[in-house]
Amino acid sequence: MAGVKLIEYTEASAEVRAVYDDIMATRKTDRVTNFWKALAAHPPTLRRTWESIKQVMAPGALDSLTKEMLYLAVSATNGCEYCIASHTASARRQGMTPEMLGELMAVVGMANETNALADGYQVEIDDAFRA
Amino acid sequence: MAGVKLIEYTEASAEVRAVYDDIMATRKTDRVTNFWKALAAHPPTLRRTWESIKQVMAPGALDSLTKEMLYLAVSATNGCEYCIASHTASARRQGMTPEMLGELMAVVGMANETNALADGYQVEIDDAFRA
Amino acid sequence: MAGVKLIEYTEASAEVRAVYDDIMATRKTDRVTNFWKALAAHPPTLRRTWESIKQVMAPGALDSLTKEMLYLAVSATNGCEYCIASHTASARRQGMTPEMLGELMAVVGMANETNALADGYQVEIDDAFRA
Amino acid sequence: MAGVKLIEYTEASAEVRAVYDDIMATRKTDRVTNFWKALAAHPPTLRRTWESIKQVMAPGALDSLTKEMLYLAVSATNGCEYCIASHTASARRQGMTPEMLGELMAVVGMANETNALADGYQVEIDDAFRA
Amino acid sequence: MAGVKLIEYTEASAEVRAVYDDIMATRKTDRVTNFWKALAAHPPTLRRTWESIKQVMAPGALDSLTKEMLYLAVSATNGCEYCIASHTASARRQGMTPEMLGELMAVVGMANETNALADGYQVEIDDAFRA
Amino acid sequence: MAGVKLIEYTEASAEVRAVYDDIMATRKTDRVTNFWKALAAHPPTLRRTWESIKQVMAPGALDSLTKEMLYLAVSATNGCEYCIASHTASARRQGMTPEMLGELMAVVGMANETNALADGYQVEIDDAFRA
Repeated sequence: MAGVKLIEYTEASAEVRAVYDDIMATRKTDRVTNFWKALAAHPPTLRRTWESIKQVMAPGALDSLTKEMLYLAVSATNGCEYCIASHTASARRQGMTPEMLGELMAVVGMANETNALADGYQVEIDDAFRA
Repeated sequence: MAGVKLIEYTEASAEVRAVYDDIMATRKTDRVTNFWKALAAHPPTLRRTWESIKQVMAPGALDSLTKEMLYLAVSATNGCEYCIASHTASARRQGMTPEMLGELMAVVGMANETNALADGYQVEIDDAFRA
Repeated sequence: MAGVKLIEYTEASAEVRAVYDDIMATRKTDRVTNFWKALAAHPPTLRRTWESIKQVMAPGALDSLTKEMLYLAVSATNGCEYCIASHTASARRQGMTPEMLGELMAVVGMANETNALADGYQVEIDDAFRA
Repeated sequence: MAGVKLIEYTEASAEVRAVYDDIMATRKTDRVTNFWKALAAHPPTLRRTWESIKQVMAPGALDSLTKEMLYLAVSATNGCEYCIASHTASARRQGMTPEMLGELMAVVGMANETNALADGYQVEIDDAFRA
Repeated sequence: MAGVKLIEYTEASAEVRAVYDDIMATRKTDRVTNFWKALAAHPPTLRRTWESIKQVMAPGALDSLTKEMLYLAVSATNGCEYCIASHTASARRQGMTPEMLGELMAVVGMANETNALADGYQVEIDDAFRA
Repeated sequence: MAGVKLIEYTEASAEVRAVYDDIMATRKTDRVTNFWKALAAHPPTLRRTWESIKQVMAPGALDSLTKEMLYLAVSATNGCEYCIASHTASARRQGMTPEMLGELMAVVGMANETNALADGYQVEIDDAFRA
């Protein structure tokens, strides 16, 4: 079950197919994942989201693997099952080893713990951080 | 105002001072930040949290800067003001440039957007991610 | 599996049945959903929550469809699967078209993105918003 | 600054004053806090929220202090500054010692850490928990 | 203090000024808010975020006021202070009355309450919602 | 499916077995739950997390049942399915009655509701809470 029907390539409009084609070409794969097939229910959101992801996830001052790991850290914090599954897979394809995943999750866990502690204890921001 | 009184070094117990000393030695600084001074209200939490942070944030399969950026990504997602301020400062000290911060925040923003979209559209996890 | 046993009408106490009857009469349906059957494990919570929902979701300065869409926006943000599924269904029954769902999710996505950016960049509130 | 004007007793309608009077009588205080003065901008929400809180926070199978601590645990997790400040104060009035606050926050911190780890590692629920 | 320096129009690059000009023209105002001045630290994020917001918030199947209210509902749920302040102001400019704000917040409150209840009680999704 | 392979006792390293043995001895059970089998993919995280949980959840100024209920309140707020399931089971084993669970969830629900209202209305913290 999905909240919206997944749009398969064969039934997609030309507008949607153009995005699917670009996704497959950019990612060097012959498959479009369910996330994009769901967004295709609203083509402007499909196109805009893909263009944004393509731009944001391209290597720049940060490499692709670091970006995937940041994505996974956010997704684990939000508890988004789909995103955790898909970005764990992507990060592994980009070279994330089990050891790196272990350290990533350890940081994510500690950050969530200390975020709650800093908020819960109402800690004032140090002047040194305001400079 | 803080939820708990901040414990300064001069008024701290020997147990708390020992942790403060280790924090300053490890971080090569002569100052303990407010977060630790707040945790000092409950010495077992101070000690345990510091030991965990020291272990988790030490360079390993991931370098220190990557770890700080992951910490910042989680903190921005949770909207923890104290943690955002302190880990932005730490990441800069470790070499995060304005360009890197810009790309980090772009990833954090997109991840939060697509997390909501994947959840909101109830997207099923692809079989390929379950292998 | 559920954390609490679902209470069916036939096994419900008179107090619980009275709430079920009011839910079905108000919603013009002959079925009570699992959410209410779970709350029935604690009758005061069942009654109070239903009375609140009935009052809050009744049309007023905002119409029923707008209220359902706001409910869905919150549920997508929190990633509550049950609530997303049930309020997507409710909003559709009240007239939400696929195009409206597409625009709703686009707003929800952007809001989650910019919330993270505003927090992450520690943006000060403009004086103009404080007037 | 507040998003809505705070309604003081002297300028409040008879309907709002009746709620304020009940809050002060129930809590044995001569002051209404800002939260209620903000809700007074929408009297039905003021009345409904107060009636719910009065019912939910009354001692029952759980005593008042345990309920205040649960409230604080949720508020720290959500990072709600107002609620953390007000429920820390309430819990202290009900007898929460610094040691109890320290242990409460330690649990809240660990729960937030392990929530992220269980989600991040996509841990399957044990059959034993489904019984 | 802000995590990044706010970029004023007079010191902005031509690329940033072009975005500022479009924001002011689109919104019929002579002021750019702090959010955009912060994003200007990373021009690609400024441009992309503005283009997305302009597209997403334009009236379509949903009118502008409904979109602003959805934005506010998400921001209140996330507790993003900046976004709550700015979108409360925007929604008011678009015609949100105090009564509408009261009902919106009542829905947001109830949705957050029942999201926690549905998750907390592990309520199974009704078959009827899966059709 | 799990993001990481679950490590069973029979295939575990001596280091991991030592933690499993301590978990089973401390909890007086002959089974290790999936959470720990997942963390075992990264032995330092397994050991550190277990040592922290053992210390934090031991009875002190707060008894074990109160600590389990606080854990459950946080987990319900975060919508962590695994943690809700496991800590509901643990709290029941420690004596949480259906009535207590009902009251706990009622508090969790109201706290999530009023957290959103206090944030959404931008309520200023009372001076009385700052003392």
